[in-house]
Amino acid sequence: MSKTGEIKLVSLGGIPEVKKGDNLGEMILRAAAGEGFSFLDEDIVVIAQKVVSKAEGRVVNLSRVEPSGFAVTVAEEVSKDPRLVEVILGETRRIVRMDERESGKGRLIVETAGGLVLANAGVDASNVSGGEDVTLLPLDSDRSARVIREHIKGETGRDLAVIITDTVGRPWREGLTDIAIGCSGMRALSDRRGETDAKGFTLTATEMATADQVACAAGMLMEKTSATPVVIVRGVDYIRAEGGSGELIRDPAHDLFR
Amino acid sequence: MSKTGEIKLVSLGGIPEVKKGDNLGEMILRAAAGEGFSFLDEDIVVIAQKVVSKAEGRVVNLSRVEPSGFAVTVAEEVSKDPRLVEVILGETRRIVRMDERESGKGRLIVETAGGLVLANAGVDASNVSGGEDVTLLPLDSDRSARVIREHIKGETGRDLAVIITDTVGRPWREGLTDIAIGCSGMRALSDRRGETDAKGFTLTATEMATADQVACAAGMLMEKTSATPVVIVRGVDYIRAEGGSGELIRDPAHDLFR
Repeated sequence: MSKTGEIKLVSLGGIPEVKKGDNLGEMILRAAAGEGFSFLDEDIVVIAQKVVSKAEGRVVNLSRVEPSGFAVTVAEEVSKDPRLVEVILGETRRIVRMDERESGKGRLIVETAGGLVLANAGVDASNVSGGEDVTLLPLDSDRSARVIREHIKGETGRDLAVIITDTVGRPWREGLTDIAIGCSGMRALSDRRGETDAKGFTLTATEMATADQVACAAGMLMEKTSATPVVIVRGVDYIRAEGGSGELIRDPAHDLFR
Repeated sequence: MSKTGEIKLVSLGGIPEVKKGDNLGEMILRAAAGEGFSFLDEDIVVIAQKVVSKAEGRVVNLSRVEPSGFAVTVAEEVSKDPRLVEVILGETRRIVRMDERESGKGRLIVETAGGLVLANAGVDASNVSGGEDVTLLPLDSDRSARVIREHIKGETGRDLAVIITDTVGRPWREGLTDIAIGCSGMRALSDRRGETDAKGFTLTATEMATADQVACAAGMLMEKTSATPVVIVRGVDYIRAEGGSGELIRDPAHDLFR
């Protein structure tokens, strides 16, 4: 719930093409200055994974990848480029689902080293310069978020939060939405269990995924065809903390769908 | 992507306690007038399922429920009230997952007659008057959304969209978020496949779940402890159409997790 009953999302234009080694925090500050945008304490800066991956050099050119025998086998099962599958498997802790080749629409749902369950381990070919370049997820998106947050705080004094998002599919439902794969400056969950509702009943299961809510909302201003990898969200009532995205990841032992 | 690069969400205060037979569209108009809020074409009115269910009389008192033998068996497996399980099974087309009783945290994930996959068929005990009252999902949430949209259009001339939301858990991730279980006045999906990205690559899988994005965003202003079941969202670039939430439901034949 917002303190003000109002939330505003603004996409930040003017972020130039991101290259390896770029200081994203600084690029965001310059883009904001160029648009006359001033940050406030408790703003949330939401950043698409793709530009974070590019800045961190998490880009692989498929022409330099030699697929293993297993990658070739899996690639045949899911109708994908064996070199792409090799890159995906390098990011994978376990395969959660492989589509049967008969469906004609290959799907490879895996659990990444970081514990995320998503298609293709988040390896993505769209919007990367060069036809054979693919991006990998940042090695530690919480750390990436923290570095950007600390840079902005150091330059502006503003104590805000940073979320890094990826666009993912979901079981049971069509269409993609964004989730938080990295987070700094806020609790990713809003634990309101134990509070009572308007009727005085104790809420038992209303732990909201705050960082995912923010990521999903910001995704509305982050379509891939537009060059807007950064969205500022203002007015969200979150719990301030160093934070991290790990609390959004369900323990596999308690997951009914893994 | 928003046309303006800016999205605003406002929670609408002043909605009184909703009772069976209430005209929700009219209540929303009065609350908006009371707050000096004017609707614009293309606004999205997001309404929590709970008040829609109450207005439509989709409330059952457990004291009047006689559990079947199967309900008693299932209730024991998932550590729930057999009468509640009876109500849930009445809304269920098939059981997708039942938690083993050993886990101590009973979970009953089902597919509803409407095709939604969610815990307890959306039957909910929180925030309903009377300790033994539970709400069921509206029989046809798309129709409920349409009735409200047409009432607002008739009274104001404004051509807006209406989304009805429920708060649900997700596989793999902790924390709840909101999804669209009903929708009118907009396409629930934004089908941008075939468009090209900033680099000229054709996007192959960027069909965004627009209505779920809006539902999830509005959920940030709809915590259950606050009496704000209605949120207005402005600035979202959606496809105008009669619409419906059905296109968000994946065909079970193509679902890897059912």
